[in-house]
Amino acid sequence: MTDTPVLALAKDLISRESVTPEDAGCQTVMIERLKALGFDVEIMVFEDTTNFWARRGTQAPLFAFAGHTDVVPAGNLADWHTPPFDPTVQDGYLYGRGAADMKGSLAAMIVAVEQFIAQHPNHQGSIGFLITSDEEGPFINGTVRVVEALMARDELIDMCIVGEPSSTEVVGDVVKNGRRGSITGDLTVKGIQGHVAYPHLARNPVHQSFLALNELATTQWDEGNAYFPPTSFQIPNIHAGTGASNVIPGELNVQFNLRFSTELNNQAIIDRVVTTLDRYDLDYELDWTFNGDPFLTDTGALLDAVVAAVAKVNNTQPELLTTGGTSDGRFIARMGGQVVELGPVNATIHKVNECVRIDDLEKLTLMYQNVLEHLLVPQ
Amino acid sequence: MTDTPVLALAKDLISRESVTPEDAGCQTVMIERLKALGFDVEIMVFEDTTNFWARRGTQAPLFAFAGHTDVVPAGNLADWHTPPFDPTVQDGYLYGRGAADMKGSLAAMIVAVEQFIAQHPNHQGSIGFLITSDEEGPFINGTVRVVEALMARDELIDMCIVGEPSSTEVVGDVVKNGRRGSITGDLTVKGIQGHVAYPHLARNPVHQSFLALNELATTQWDEGNAYFPPTSFQIPNIHAGTGASNVIPGELNVQFNLRFSTELNNQAIIDRVVTTLDRYDLDYELDWTFNGDPFLTDTGALLDAVVAAVAKVNNTQPELLTTGGTSDGRFIARMGGQVVELGPVNATIHKVNECVRIDDLEKLTLMYQNVLEHLLVPQ
Repeated sequence: MTDTPVLALAKDLISRESVTPEDAGCQTVMIERLKALGFDVEIMVFEDTTNFWARRGTQAPLFAFAGHTDVVPAGNLADWHTPPFDPTVQDGYLYGRGAADMKGSLAAMIVAVEQFIAQHPNHQGSIGFLITSDEEGPFINGTVRVVEALMARDELIDMCIVGEPSSTEVVGDVVKNGRRGSITGDLTVKGIQGHVAYPHLARNPVHQSFLALNELATTQWDEGNAYFPPTSFQIPNIHAGTGASNVIPGELNVQFNLRFSTELNNQAIIDRVVTTLDRYDLDYELDWTFNGDPFLTDTGALLDAVVAAVAKVNNTQPELLTTGGTSDGRFIARMGGQVVELGPVNATIHKVNECVRIDDLEKLTLMYQNVLEHLLVPQ
Repeated sequence: MTDTPVLALAKDLISRESVTPEDAGCQTVMIERLKALGFDVEIMVFEDTTNFWARRGTQAPLFAFAGHTDVVPAGNLADWHTPPFDPTVQDGYLYGRGAADMKGSLAAMIVAVEQFIAQHPNHQGSIGFLITSDEEGPFINGTVRVVEALMARDELIDMCIVGEPSSTEVVGDVVKNGRRGSITGDLTVKGIQGHVAYPHLARNPVHQSFLALNELATTQWDEGNAYFPPTSFQIPNIHAGTGASNVIPGELNVQFNLRFSTELNNQAIIDRVVTTLDRYDLDYELDWTFNGDPFLTDTGALLDAVVAAVAKVNNTQPELLTTGGTSDGRFIARMGGQVVELGPVNATIHKVNECVRIDDLEKLTLMYQNVLEHLLVPQ
């Protein structure tokens, strides 16, 4: 039996070993297909990262698909039942690194656009593709740079579907219509190093910090809102000491991260942290990394189209959630448009034996195609 | 000008590069001198460490000198004004690694015994030397093993001077007549690892531990007593986290150390720590390392003799203190005898340009000789 178009393309992409920031030719495959459809393609290389922006049409609205060709490393090969970069079909599933995150989505986007243009060669508006190969890496030279380039020339995406694996049990059961913000603080509390036998000559920054850190860890930052869970604070890393058991450390290094709702913003968090620390009379330095503002798409044509498309294919409406980790959606949202994430089931992503249900790939293709029809064809 | 006996021997010992656990022939030099005086010498090699026990006489009381031939590494050679293993005299000081800690003391012990025996060949009691080469290292195969061997055959040291650099400004201004105990706890608090975006699926052991650790760090363990400062608690090391900013750590590792007075003991400390941790409902493992019990020599013939010897040479009495780090005295005290520490000024020990005042070496030799006369000659 010949593979369907979306399965064939998904296999082709999985067979290319594109571990971050490598693209391994995936984008070339996509670009050839898009050029054949009349897309103008702009390859954007930033440092070690290859990205491309493709557009068909010059009119508004500009609808775009966004995604990444890179994948996380395979992990322990011995734990894979099939070779991770040798796509394999078994019992209705396609196995391989990137099957769900997110080469399956990329294949569905391309095939959906091909089928849509075949029926509507003179569609309204414009269709875009914003594709990177660093989503799984440091996200420095990927989507964020392409967004900057587009914004610099005032080419703004009005509506965007990010193909991240949003679903829980069947494709489309969950659509992410926003994401929490993320901010990281690197705190260094300074003491005075010394010998444990002479504590009066030293000042232990570990001892000094317990109550301040406890207050930060137990603060109720907000209560969330209709779309977001309450803001959460976590300490992923804490370190002090030389390893020797007789030396009072000279400094304590603490890293904390907040995932925050639209009730808060970076400055409000900074102010509250600084106020808390200052109350404990600590000698400290504090550096911030802004990983992304929260975004929310709670109304609009895109969300209506996505909900309708899922309902048409699945016969049930998707759940709209803002939970989970960050995605490149946060960068695209900076353009001010509508952004949602719709993709396969995420149960196996970043794990060994990553897979996607083949039937879900077909459904996803139909959903994407249906969204295009809602948005770019007169109803 | 010819070097005096103590200066010549100190130079000889310093010129041998005996970085822990190396002895580099220092003990051979000492053994030859002691054999010439009629000492019976027993070389005790444990694993990588060479030690010796020497004794002259079979009667009680058994008085011994204790010390170590090993030294700490030289550190940055560029910071030394003279080569660390090329003993150099400048402006009345002898420079070199080990000059103060404690090859100067070893030279003073040998010369003091030579002079004493020349005058009192038929002294009362016995004289011993307990010499190791691992005092600056892990103290596993040094004094502690020799003490075990002597105790196993019921050969107990009644009175002992450890040649550690006890003095502050001039030799003999401080005599250590005891040392605090030391106990180390390695605590692992277990949580549940997870992604910071899904805190409800994880449990952060760092957050859980702040209040318990703060209570331990602020506990008043005791008030000390006439001879000891209050027990002190310090956290030299604390670590949690994978380094990634998006992973809630699965465990927190905390190391703490207590320097404790004779008001406490290991079991009392363990009980109190466990009671405290249990009150905070933590899932933890706790391993203990017993570095040594506190010891105190507050009366007796040895202390009287040492005070008298210092007073005779210096015209002032020494201050008796129990402050500072641990020494091998804690192991010798297990034999139940009297132990004091008397040695040079410790201002430069473990630092570059370690040195000892040559005049102090002469004084220390006289002090040691005078102690022998007090203890082993009918008054």
